[in-house]
Amino acid sequence: MRETLVIKAGGGEGINLDAICADVAELIKEGAWRVVLVHGGSARLNEVSAALGHPPNFLTSPSGHVSRRTDRKTLELFEMVYCGSVNKGVVERLQRLGINAAGLSGLDARLWQGTRKAAIRAVIEGRTVVVRDDYTGTVDRVNVELLDHLLATGITPVLTPPAVSMEGEAINVDADRAAAMTAAALRASTILYLTSAPGLLRNFPDESTLIPRIPRADIPRAAESAQGRMKKKVLGAEEAMNAGVRRIIFADGRIATPIRNALAGQGTVFE
Amino acid sequence: MRETLVIKAGGGEGINLDAICADVAELIKEGAWRVVLVHGGSARLNEVSAALGHPPNFLTSPSGHVSRRTDRKTLELFEMVYCGSVNKGVVERLQRLGINAAGLSGLDARLWQGTRKAAIRAVIEGRTVVVRDDYTGTVDRVNVELLDHLLATGITPVLTPPAVSMEGEAINVDADRAAAMTAAALRASTILYLTSAPGLLRNFPDESTLIPRIPRADIPRAAESAQGRMKKKVLGAEEAMNAGVRRIIFADGRIATPIRNALAGQGTVFE
Repeated sequence: MRETLVIKAGGGEGINLDAICADVAELIKEGAWRVVLVHGGSARLNEVSAALGHPPNFLTSPSGHVSRRTDRKTLELFEMVYCGSVNKGVVERLQRLGINAAGLSGLDARLWQGTRKAAIRAVIEGRTVVVRDDYTGTVDRVNVELLDHLLATGITPVLTPPAVSMEGEAINVDADRAAAMTAAALRASTILYLTSAPGLLRNFPDESTLIPRIPRADIPRAAESAQGRMKKKVLGAEEAMNAGVRRIIFADGRIATPIRNALAGQGTVFE
Repeated sequence: MRETLVIKAGGGEGINLDAICADVAELIKEGAWRVVLVHGGSARLNEVSAALGHPPNFLTSPSGHVSRRTDRKTLELFEMVYCGSVNKGVVERLQRLGINAAGLSGLDARLWQGTRKAAIRAVIEGRTVVVRDDYTGTVDRVNVELLDHLLATGITPVLTPPAVSMEGEAINVDADRAAAMTAAALRASTILYLTSAPGLLRNFPDESTLIPRIPRADIPRAAESAQGRMKKKVLGAEEAMNAGVRRIIFADGRIATPIRNALAGQGTVFE
């Protein structure tokens, strides 16, 4: 059986979805990989939210993690942008390149089932407060049967948050961690994280300080020193490795042939 | 094998998606039907388009058909609203009711493959003009294999335009006609069209002039006398009957238990 590759295309500024889709199409046509594409959409969501009069808001947890404040109105804007705008844009690009893609959110067929957080703690103006009406959570279970069926019938899944809670609510989940869970569930050999940086940087944002290799034993230390969003990605990488994914690559999603370059070893390789 | 029911929920003002989803959930739990839900989103698209500075625009054909002007920007807004906002809203409602729904557009897995119109003729200020950059078309082929697989594995498909052209472009297609094509392809016995009216009216918009029954032989005359959007629905009904669908019902989508009422014979029944 062909090896499975999970690609996570970030939703930050400058991510080159045309180049990513062109590489995905070539890889699939070569026939060497089963490919699942997961994407974000945060930069576009910030724009649309502001334009529709509900500007984005972010919460910082007591431990320093930053996450999007996802009230009900934000969740609806989130679905418009991630499931409508970005997802269908990616599916159309792939269809135009002759790849039979299908876009699904984690809500659809309970593809990503998880747990909604009953309350989240956030630090606001120096005080820790509890937010109870946030629609965020984690992915606990992946509908592997449906993904396997799609892949077996020549359909390329294009996946995006939100996920679905046990109770059937849409929940905003971290797409990096969802990609890691998906890779583990599909027994993928490799995950690529394509971001707005050339990989993990020793001194963010100095791109000359790229860390080319991180052996497994060094991951906890790398997670500790990573900045902002990268911290979650490194934690996701560790989880994926623990779940059996052999190779995880953080690479540049802004350039031409981003997937080729990453598979050739450019970026930060965890192995 | 259970009979198949295709339900088209309109996208007009006042359509009660909560009531429609509640009825769908009950029907599925009773186990008598395989259900496919198709939806529109035109009223919501008009709002979002206006809010984002690209107000809706409609074209009238020389024969009097009115259709949405779908330039590239409109197509992108269309995907946000139909595939993001409305589709995921319906899927979430069903998931909360314990139904494992999956939302797909016609782009996904080439579910609705069609033909983009190379040019459309429109009457603008009394003159007939040709519009070439419109992304509209028709559905020629339905991916029945995927729908059958979903239904066989207990997943309820929730479908929405756009469709996909042979070349892989997203195209705006009439959701009523797409629902009719889907019903024919699935050998459905029944289609329900739930709209912002109690059925087909002899004198639109006078709801006391509801036409309760239309025998097959009278359909051409009914199409001729129908107003506006209803004309397309009647044409779709005729196509569906020609393709083997036995019963087509136009019924009120604004009320409680809209599907129960329609299946009990309220509305306009073509048979």
